[in-house]
Amino acid sequence: MTELKGACIFGQSGGPTAVINASAQGVIETALKTGCITKVYGASHGIKGVLDDELFDMSLEDPKEISMLKYTPSSALGSCRYKLKDPDTDTTEYERILEIFRKYDVRYFFYNGGNDSMDTCNKISKYMQKVGYECRVIGVPKTIDNDLAGTDHCPGYGSAAKYIATSCMEVFQDARVYDVGTVTVVEIMGRNAGWLTAAAALAKDMGCGPDLIYLPETDFYMNRFLDDVEEIYKLTGYCMVAVSEGIHYPDGSLVSDVANSVVDSFGHVQLGGLASLLADEVKNRTGAKVRGIELSLLQRCASHCASATDIEEAYMAGRVAVESAVKGLTDKMVTFTCRRDPKYLCTANLVDLDVAANAEKKIPREWINAAGNGLKSDFSAYALPLIQGEPDRPMENSLPRFARLARRKA
Amino acid sequence: MTELKGACIFGQSGGPTAVINASAQGVIETALKTGCITKVYGASHGIKGVLDDELFDMSLEDPKEISMLKYTPSSALGSCRYKLKDPDTDTTEYERILEIFRKYDVRYFFYNGGNDSMDTCNKISKYMQKVGYECRVIGVPKTIDNDLAGTDHCPGYGSAAKYIATSCMEVFQDARVYDVGTVTVVEIMGRNAGWLTAAAALAKDMGCGPDLIYLPETDFYMNRFLDDVEEIYKLTGYCMVAVSEGIHYPDGSLVSDVANSVVDSFGHVQLGGLASLLADEVKNRTGAKVRGIELSLLQRCASHCASATDIEEAYMAGRVAVESAVKGLTDKMVTFTCRRDPKYLCTANLVDLDVAANAEKKIPREWINAAGNGLKSDFSAYALPLIQGEPDRPMENSLPRFARLARRKA
Repeated sequence: MTELKGACIFGQSGGPTAVINASAQGVIETALKTGCITKVYGASHGIKGVLDDELFDMSLEDPKEISMLKYTPSSALGSCRYKLKDPDTDTTEYERILEIFRKYDVRYFFYNGGNDSMDTCNKISKYMQKVGYECRVIGVPKTIDNDLAGTDHCPGYGSAAKYIATSCMEVFQDARVYDVGTVTVVEIMGRNAGWLTAAAALAKDMGCGPDLIYLPETDFYMNRFLDDVEEIYKLTGYCMVAVSEGIHYPDGSLVSDVANSVVDSFGHVQLGGLASLLADEVKNRTGAKVRGIELSLLQRCASHCASATDIEEAYMAGRVAVESAVKGLTDKMVTFTCRRDPKYLCTANLVDLDVAANAEKKIPREWINAAGNGLKSDFSAYALPLIQGEPDRPMENSLPRFARLARRKA
Repeated sequence: MTELKGACIFGQSGGPTAVINASAQGVIETALKTGCITKVYGASHGIKGVLDDELFDMSLEDPKEISMLKYTPSSALGSCRYKLKDPDTDTTEYERILEIFRKYDVRYFFYNGGNDSMDTCNKISKYMQKVGYECRVIGVPKTIDNDLAGTDHCPGYGSAAKYIATSCMEVFQDARVYDVGTVTVVEIMGRNAGWLTAAAALAKDMGCGPDLIYLPETDFYMNRFLDDVEEIYKLTGYCMVAVSEGIHYPDGSLVSDVANSVVDSFGHVQLGGLASLLADEVKNRTGAKVRGIELSLLQRCASHCASATDIEEAYMAGRVAVESAVKGLTDKMVTFTCRRDPKYLCTANLVDLDVAANAEKKIPREWINAAGNGLKSDFSAYALPLIQGEPDRPMENSLPRFARLARRKA
């Protein structure tokens, strides 16, 4: 074990989740009590805060407020969607990062995010190695999308899945309350991977969930979809459908493309309006009363419906990142290895950043039924342990009490 | 006290809520143990089930399942939006109802709904009086809209308000996570009364809620709205807005009219798409990144975020309806009288059905700020007691376990 003395920077990146702050708490609390970490800085808005020299001194925070991060959704330090330039063509940003690292004697860098953020983390790690600046870099996984490679699942997914399953159960109850038949289409996040939308299958297992589930892992055919809906609607008078925002035709074009075409800074198309679009198609075909519901931001920030398992694992991911770096490891991302039989057990490991960066893990095709409109029990066996447990969250007047960080400039 | 022996019918009507089934439980459990009530029938889809002779025998239900109704959203017996004809012009439906009442020896009729449903209840009550058929009729209030006259508040409102406040707090956290400014517009239910949208003010009291709140109680001016948003956005980089679906221009036309124009069977315009419409207007004016979020059905069925106070009061409303009828009262609706100082205390009373039927209670103008874009503390003092307490709801695999009624035909 090589003891490396120096400061650490922790940053949050990408879309927030209900538990990204639990990982922050894991990093901050562990780093603050680790002797060799001399200072704990939080970066304002991830790597942008590093580039802009906007760092917060975490030792100035009230520990009571830090302890509430576990129950505070979204990103307490601020996040960013910022893609660093390719270091082979332009090293300006990396030189700036190195300058800031030198200024604050930063020897530990922890970066919390999804696959784009792990790419950022990886590039920084490789650059520091190349220029010979000793800095241990560990990625902390986070994404409601659950699409990071090299890990059983990602912190953030369990809570989003629980909210989606719970909300689908409630909407199912509500959507069949009249004796006038209805078709309800629920639009769920997920561009390329259907993990979030698949969580609707957990509602179905409880006897009240979508009849049909469409994921981006398979091609979408509008006519088959309308046939599927019509058949169930004619038989039962009702039909509930869950669709991923990323469903696409065989040629790869998004079904939602007609509805919206704004592009974010990573080049992803910002989706939306798909539920209404499909509901309209169903109405035209069947004449049914239809309703399109978009879970929107709620599915990624609903900490009031978080999974206690997810919160504890998110915290563990942050803690293990710090402990591993202190032990001398670097250039890794924390991963989870899980045993599900006879009892769920999740342990933290590490994988090379190269493995995690930019790779996308999708739902195995064999977990999806042949028709491509539902999930097999393999998915539920995988996902159910991840949503377990209700956190004992702090409340004030029966409303959530979120952490209030001072965010004092370093 | 006149003992009246006979059967009772209970029906649910109008849009469901997170706690309408708690009132059902209150009626059913109380009626089942009341000696003079010989049979307890549940009407399938409210008054339509009476007209169609579709009644369920509640004594055949498993009491354990009935006890879970408190935690089951939506309408367990099925609801309807059915307007009875004016008895002065056409008595056909009333004669049919009388026929069914005679067939099953129905002497008690309990009807659970909002103002349109209280109108139904009132018409039936008056008709039975007119034809001299002894039947005690009691309305059980229910509406997330909270717009029934003659009562402090309505069962269903507290839970919807709690969900709205909680979700607004979470969206607030999420919507300011990037250093790129954002304007977020949240669309909340409420055609003519702003009670639901006003609940967003409870989030603001917690330090994370909408900057601006627009209700149907005041006229809406698009330019003033855009000025309001622009001012806050320029000052802080962010702006969050809560709008009621029913906001309207001074001439009474709905702001959402462009977005949608489907009409339901009561002649109400089905609203939707308002959030996107306003978000687009803001984008055009400010160039800001915008997001429109519609809470949609979720706000009326989110039993996972219900208020324990609301559940207990909804149950009490059902219980008191039966107890009052047995005591000899009729032609009334259950109401709540509340004391808020020094401690919240809610008692059940009765008001004439004439008072409740079709009247709409709105937010007092003096509770709304002069600019018409926010609430004063009077509102919070009123609403906060109604959202208190987390129910100890039954769960299976960390998902809600809803009541499963057998609904055996009588």
